[in-house]
Amino acid sequence: MTTSIEPFDVVDLIRVKRSSGTLSTAQIDWLIDAYTRGYVADEQMSALTMAIFLNGMQRSEIRDLTLAMIASGETMSFDGLGRTTVDKHSTGGVGDKITLPLAPLVASFGVAVPQLSGRGLGHTGGTLDKLESIPGWQASLTNERMREILADEGAVICAAGTGLAPADAKLYALRDITGTVEAIPLIASSIMSKKIAEGTAALVLDVKFGSGAFIQDFTRAQELAHTMVDLGTDAGVRTSALLTDMSVPLGKTIGNALEVRESLETLSGGGPADIRELTVALAREMLAAAGQPDADVEAALDDGRAMDSWNRMIRAQGGDPEAPLPVAPHTHVVTAAESGYLIEQEALPFGIAAWRLGAGRARKQDPVMATAGIELHAKPGDQVTAGQPLFTLHSEDESRFGRALEAVEGAWSIGGTAPAPRSLVVERIS
Amino acid sequence: MTTSIEPFDVVDLIRVKRSSGTLSTAQIDWLIDAYTRGYVADEQMSALTMAIFLNGMQRSEIRDLTLAMIASGETMSFDGLGRTTVDKHSTGGVGDKITLPLAPLVASFGVAVPQLSGRGLGHTGGTLDKLESIPGWQASLTNERMREILADEGAVICAAGTGLAPADAKLYALRDITGTVEAIPLIASSIMSKKIAEGTAALVLDVKFGSGAFIQDFTRAQELAHTMVDLGTDAGVRTSALLTDMSVPLGKTIGNALEVRESLETLSGGGPADIRELTVALAREMLAAAGQPDADVEAALDDGRAMDSWNRMIRAQGGDPEAPLPVAPHTHVVTAAESGYLIEQEALPFGIAAWRLGAGRARKQDPVMATAGIELHAKPGDQVTAGQPLFTLHSEDESRFGRALEAVEGAWSIGGTAPAPRSLVVERIS
Repeated sequence: MTTSIEPFDVVDLIRVKRSSGTLSTAQIDWLIDAYTRGYVADEQMSALTMAIFLNGMQRSEIRDLTLAMIASGETMSFDGLGRTTVDKHSTGGVGDKITLPLAPLVASFGVAVPQLSGRGLGHTGGTLDKLESIPGWQASLTNERMREILADEGAVICAAGTGLAPADAKLYALRDITGTVEAIPLIASSIMSKKIAEGTAALVLDVKFGSGAFIQDFTRAQELAHTMVDLGTDAGVRTSALLTDMSVPLGKTIGNALEVRESLETLSGGGPADIRELTVALAREMLAAAGQPDADVEAALDDGRAMDSWNRMIRAQGGDPEAPLPVAPHTHVVTAAESGYLIEQEALPFGIAAWRLGAGRARKQDPVMATAGIELHAKPGDQVTAGQPLFTLHSEDESRFGRALEAVEGAWSIGGTAPAPRSLVVERIS
Repeated sequence: MTTSIEPFDVVDLIRVKRSSGTLSTAQIDWLIDAYTRGYVADEQMSALTMAIFLNGMQRSEIRDLTLAMIASGETMSFDGLGRTTVDKHSTGGVGDKITLPLAPLVASFGVAVPQLSGRGLGHTGGTLDKLESIPGWQASLTNERMREILADEGAVICAAGTGLAPADAKLYALRDITGTVEAIPLIASSIMSKKIAEGTAALVLDVKFGSGAFIQDFTRAQELAHTMVDLGTDAGVRTSALLTDMSVPLGKTIGNALEVRESLETLSGGGPADIRELTVALAREMLAAAGQPDADVEAALDDGRAMDSWNRMIRAQGGDPEAPLPVAPHTHVVTAAESGYLIEQEALPFGIAAWRLGAGRARKQDPVMATAGIELHAKPGDQVTAGQPLFTLHSEDESRFGRALEAVEGAWSIGGTAPAPRSLVVERIS
């Protein structure tokens, strides 16, 4: 009985998902287009996303949603670059600075690594925030300049422009304020619409599980990984995923400049064992996707090739790789109350503590402190002696130590027997 | 980490309902207040209502929600009126004109019957739309004039003011466009917040099930009835409910002026058997709640007391009960193709057909045609002869007959054996 010329009524579409039905390709195409145009209102979209959150989506619907979001904006192409492109995406975690050593390492093998990255929100850090602690480094590039750096240096890490999948940006902002962020179909289509629109030939996903991850449950993380690998494969992008443990912080630093410092150690052939392990595993996966399954990535870390690649990448974006990194004026050391083995070190509380010290932001418009964060002097399995430093808090604002310490209360423990060693890379999905 | 002075974060509340948790009284009070103030946005409320639609609410939450919506506006009181007040609410159906004979009938026993009514939307008609087909009759009254008519005449049927439970009005408008109308906790709190705020001493609910009802499934209608009776009882309102069958149209007319005509027949002691049966059953229930369990309501229909009460009620609101009702300029008769028993007559298709003829509206701002609708010449169980008129369509616009006929295609059938008789009033809940 309506006189509208629109082909569908959004309330009918909401009813379909409300009762666990399946939307057609035409319905999803119309929905995303009508939402981008503003014909479908935010309150209608949020009811629909909650129904999707609770009732899920079929594989066909997730694919249609991803394609509709790609169609809402521009697409890029790296054809004619003269290098194979391989992108990597991590679902994010505490102390996850892997992109920093990984991109130049992989680029040192002649592969192009375009890393359109984001900023941190909440307890997980953002790659751009980390790199901005390097004096002079600029996150924003035009598409042309990005291509140029990619052709010349092989690696570029920069802010994603607003032209790719604008429907996703609008939908993500809505999900953020309506409690529907953690829905697997919506996460998968959000990530993959941008990666497919970007035009990469191959993609390696680092899908995290455990207390510091976005999706904490292993089975759900597995489902997310399968969903994204399917989406990439359906769209002609060679896609694989590693499921990695995020129940303890990655490496020994959390916080922007502190994580850059640790990345430089890794690029020099050193750094914490877990950072090197994950960097190497992801580099092998990316290079295999680029046709170099036998590349000796460890040698490139040890002989300086990865570091050379880093220096060129940083300079190309105005950064000075020789300049000293900023250091926090205030620190607070926490020592072991007893001797024994460090048993636990929970990622989420340490992530929240670093955030409270100033390393993260509560609202998108907030600035972050480059120097704030936490240095971990011991990792689970290490033997510690009473009185030995366990971790050091860093901040520009001493008054923040109290609330940071509250966050980590009970988040570590010392015991008489060593904990069982944990695997970092638990499963590969392709 | 937020700097807001609000005691809760709405995203946390959404997460609670998303995972089937229970909101506290303080959380619900804040939610409804913050939504009324505009601090909680429509898109947040719609995600929350979808989570409630799919995951339900505990009895304590439904009570808290109802009380919070009452607290969002003014409350009325009928104390000092000198009459006991009894209100009746129907969840709505096809051909449901029972309020029209019922209110004056009950008032004729000295009881006050305040009927704050609404307009129709979609296939169910609205009481005010029906009464507006009476020349001169006015739906809008001030609270003072409403009280005055109630004190003088005993019965008043008028538009609900905007002062009662404004949060409910805002929430209902949102649910209407976001596919969350049919959630039992939300329907129950919406209806009951207005009835409790109105200040009636007793309330009888006519909760319908079957194809023409809002809630078609019997078990869900039963759940709605129990939920509303509990809410009323908890708030000190004597509340009971009749569960009544709405799978065939009520009476022999659907449409505004046509239903007024049938109501007048009932008030004269005649009218279709089902209309009289339901009017009498609800009147007995209301009078029992008002302390007159033995009132002879049938006599009041047969001896003209109910009609006298009607005439006074209509005149008090500017209507002329003697004026002829408007009649449609165009009619279309559908006849029986064969002889036998009328087996089926589905309420929903006939409701949609009447709507398409002009009796109802698709959007709130649309007008309705007073004369449009359907007259049913036979009801299920009646014997019919081939060629005999089965029903007549009425409209001011001949071009509407085609789509109305499409709506009722297959909605009735004629067979060799009489269908089993159906009970109209199936259960009483108190």
